[in-house]
Amino acid sequence: MDYAKESLKMHEKWKGKLEVAATVPVETKEDLSLAYTPGVARPCLEIQKCPEKSYELTRRWNLCAVVTDGSAVLGLGDIGPEAGMPVMEGKCVLFKSFADVDAFPLCIKSKDVDTIVETIYMISGSFGGINLEDISAPRCFEIESKLKEKCDIPIFHDDQHGTAVITLAGLTNALKIVGKEKEKIKIVTSGAGAAAISITRLLLSAGYQDIIMTDRKGAIYKGRKEGMSWIKEEMARVTNLEKRTGTLAEVIKGADVFIGVSAPGLVTEEMVRSMNQDAIIFACANPTPEIFPEDARKAGAAVIATGRSDFPNQINNVLAFPGIFRGTFDARAKEINEEMKMAAARALANLIPEDELSPDYIIPKAFDPRVGPAVAAAVAKAARDSGVVAE
Amino acid sequence: MDYAKESLKMHEKWKGKLEVAATVPVETKEDLSLAYTPGVARPCLEIQKCPEKSYELTRRWNLCAVVTDGSAVLGLGDIGPEAGMPVMEGKCVLFKSFADVDAFPLCIKSKDVDTIVETIYMISGSFGGINLEDISAPRCFEIESKLKEKCDIPIFHDDQHGTAVITLAGLTNALKIVGKEKEKIKIVTSGAGAAAISITRLLLSAGYQDIIMTDRKGAIYKGRKEGMSWIKEEMARVTNLEKRTGTLAEVIKGADVFIGVSAPGLVTEEMVRSMNQDAIIFACANPTPEIFPEDARKAGAAVIATGRSDFPNQINNVLAFPGIFRGTFDARAKEINEEMKMAAARALANLIPEDELSPDYIIPKAFDPRVGPAVAAAVAKAARDSGVVAE
Repeated sequence: MDYAKESLKMHEKWKGKLEVAATVPVETKEDLSLAYTPGVARPCLEIQKCPEKSYELTRRWNLCAVVTDGSAVLGLGDIGPEAGMPVMEGKCVLFKSFADVDAFPLCIKSKDVDTIVETIYMISGSFGGINLEDISAPRCFEIESKLKEKCDIPIFHDDQHGTAVITLAGLTNALKIVGKEKEKIKIVTSGAGAAAISITRLLLSAGYQDIIMTDRKGAIYKGRKEGMSWIKEEMARVTNLEKRTGTLAEVIKGADVFIGVSAPGLVTEEMVRSMNQDAIIFACANPTPEIFPEDARKAGAAVIATGRSDFPNQINNVLAFPGIFRGTFDARAKEINEEMKMAAARALANLIPEDELSPDYIIPKAFDPRVGPAVAAAVAKAARDSGVVAE
Repeated sequence: MDYAKESLKMHEKWKGKLEVAATVPVETKEDLSLAYTPGVARPCLEIQKCPEKSYELTRRWNLCAVVTDGSAVLGLGDIGPEAGMPVMEGKCVLFKSFADVDAFPLCIKSKDVDTIVETIYMISGSFGGINLEDISAPRCFEIESKLKEKCDIPIFHDDQHGTAVITLAGLTNALKIVGKEKEKIKIVTSGAGAAAISITRLLLSAGYQDIIMTDRKGAIYKGRKEGMSWIKEEMARVTNLEKRTGTLAEVIKGADVFIGVSAPGLVTEEMVRSMNQDAIIFACANPTPEIFPEDARKAGAAVIATGRSDFPNQINNVLAFPGIFRGTFDARAKEINEEMKMAAARALANLIPEDELSPDYIIPKAFDPRVGPAVAAAVAKAARDSGVVAE
C-alpha cells in the first residue's frame, strides 16, 4: 500500500482524528442545573478551597497534553507548529486506544525555549501531565528540565524516554539470548539527538557501564573540540570514560552492542563483523535503518531490532508511553522518574517468558493486549515505591 | 432540589464531564500506518506547504478553546484557574451538545493581561476559535482586543457578547409587544462589567440611541470624576450624550427599558412605577435579580426577563454561543463581528412568530431544537455577507 497517498486520503475524509465528547447528559433543565449553573458553583468552591480536588472533580486526573513546537516532526525536521498536528492527533488517538488516557494535542507558535516553557506552565493547571513531542535536540532537554522545575505535574518527553524504555527492555532480553551480562559488555551508540541521549542515560541508570556515544564527528569524549554542545559535554562526563577516539567504524570494533538512532545505512557488514561475537544490533533509524536486518545477520549479528513494523523486534514507542501515563495517572504520581522508566522496561521484557524468547522475539508486539496493563501496573508500583505519589 | 449538594455529588461521580475520544480506529498495523507513522508524514507536509490545510486535515475546523483565568467565575469572583474548570468543562459540554462544536477547557495561571494574551496566542494554531470565559472586567476587554489584533482565528468573550446577543433578541421582541420603536426609547442599564458594556455596545450597533449606563456611583457621563476607568470613559463618549447625572433611582424616571446585569434587589417597585408606561425590565443579576418579576409586574412593567430558568423569558447564554460558533466554523469566518452578532439576535427573535409572542414568551427556550441551527445559519450568512470568511 502507498501509505503516504492513502493516509492523505483518509485524513481528508476524517477531518481530524479526535473529538471532545461529553460524558454527561444535558437534555433537561435539571441536567443543565447540575452540570452547569447554578449547581456547578459548589464543585468550583471545593477546588478553590483545595486545588488538589481538581483531580477528583474535573477530568484532570486522566488528561495529558501532547505538546510540540513542530521543530522535529518525525524525520521531517522543522515543519512548523500547525504541520505537526496530524502527528499529535495520532499520538492522542494512541493514548486513548491503548491506555484510555485522554490526550489533547497542542502546538506552540515559538521555537524559543523559555517561551515554550512559560506557555506550557501557564496552562498546566488544566492537565494531569504533559507529553512533549517532536521537539528538536538539544532544546528538548532544556525545555523538559525547566518544566520539571516549574510545574507540579509529570513531564515526559516521549521521543527521549519512550524509546529509551523499549530499548532497555529489548536489550535486557537480547542479553539473555546471547548469555552476556550488562556489566561486562561494550555498547556503541550512534546519534546525539533526544533518543540517543535518553537511551544512554537510562542504560547507565540501569547498570550498564561501558557506553561510547558517536555522532557525525565520531566518538564523543571529554575534551573533544569539534561539534560539541552542552548536552554532549554532559554525556562525555559519564560515557566513554577511557576517552576512546575515532570514527564509528573504529570504535565499534569489539563492541557487543550497537544502538543506532541516527541515519540510514551508517553501519556496514564489515563493521558488524568487526564487533564481538554474538553482536546485538538495534538499527532504529526510520524508515531506513542503519543496516538492514538481513545484512546484519549475514555479518554474524545474533539479535537485531529496528524501528520498523515489517521486521521482527520493532522498537515501537506505543509499547511504552500509553502504559507509562496510565500508571502515572493511576498512582497520581507527581513525576515520571528513572525508577518508573526502568520498571516499565522490566515489565515489557518480562512479558516474554524465557522459553518463548528468540532472536526474532525479544520485544512484545505493539498490539499485544498485555502490554498496556503490565506497563501501567509496574509504573504505578514504582511510583509508590519511590515515593513520588501525591498524598 | 439542593442543586449545590447534588451537583457536587454528581461531579464526584463523573470525575470530569468531558473525554477526548478517537474518531478513527487503530486496531491493526494498517490502521496505525495510516493514522500515525509512516503515513501521517504526508498530511503533515501538506500543511507545511499550506497552513490553511490544517482546517481540512486536522480537527481545527471544529475546535474551540474555552479559556479562563478564573478571575470572575460565575458570581463567585476570583477563585483561581483550577477552580474555574468545572464551569469550563460544563461550557464545553454545552458547545458539544447544542452545536456539535468540539470545545476544550483551558485555565491560565496568570492574571496579567499580556501573559494571558501571549499564552493564548502561542497555542492558537491548535484551534479554530477561542471562547474567553469568566475573565474579570475591565481586563477582559483589553485581553479580547489584543487577541483579536494578534491572532488569525475568531476570538469571542461569551460573558460579553453572548449575553448581549440574547438581550438584543429579547428587547427586539419586547418592543413589538409594547409597540415602541428602538430609535425613540430611553434605556437605563445597571452594572459596568463585561455584560453591561457589551450589551450597550451591541444595542448602539443595532440602532438604539438613548442609553444611560449606571454603576454604584450612579449615571456614567463624560466628565464624571469618581469611579471611572478607561472603559467607562470610552462608554461615556457614546452613551448618555445629555450627560444626565444622579442615582439609578433618579435616571430611571421616564425610562422605557431597564437592563440590569448588576446586583440583587437594586430596583424597587417605586422605581418601576417612575418609568414610562409599559416598562420593559430585564433583571439579570443571578441568582437573585435586581427585582423579582412578580414585584415588577405589580408596579406596572409590561415585559420582564431574568437570568433564571424558573421564570419566563430567561436570558440564557446557551441560546447564543453554541450556534454562533457553529455558524462561524461552518463559514470558516476569521472573526465574529457586529454583523454576525446582530444576525444571531435577529434569528433568535424571529424564531417566535408575532402571533405567538406574549409578555411571557419573548425569548426562545433553552432546549428549543430550532435555536442552534437558526443561529448558526444566520451567523454563517452574515459572515459571508460581511466578507470575513477565509478564501
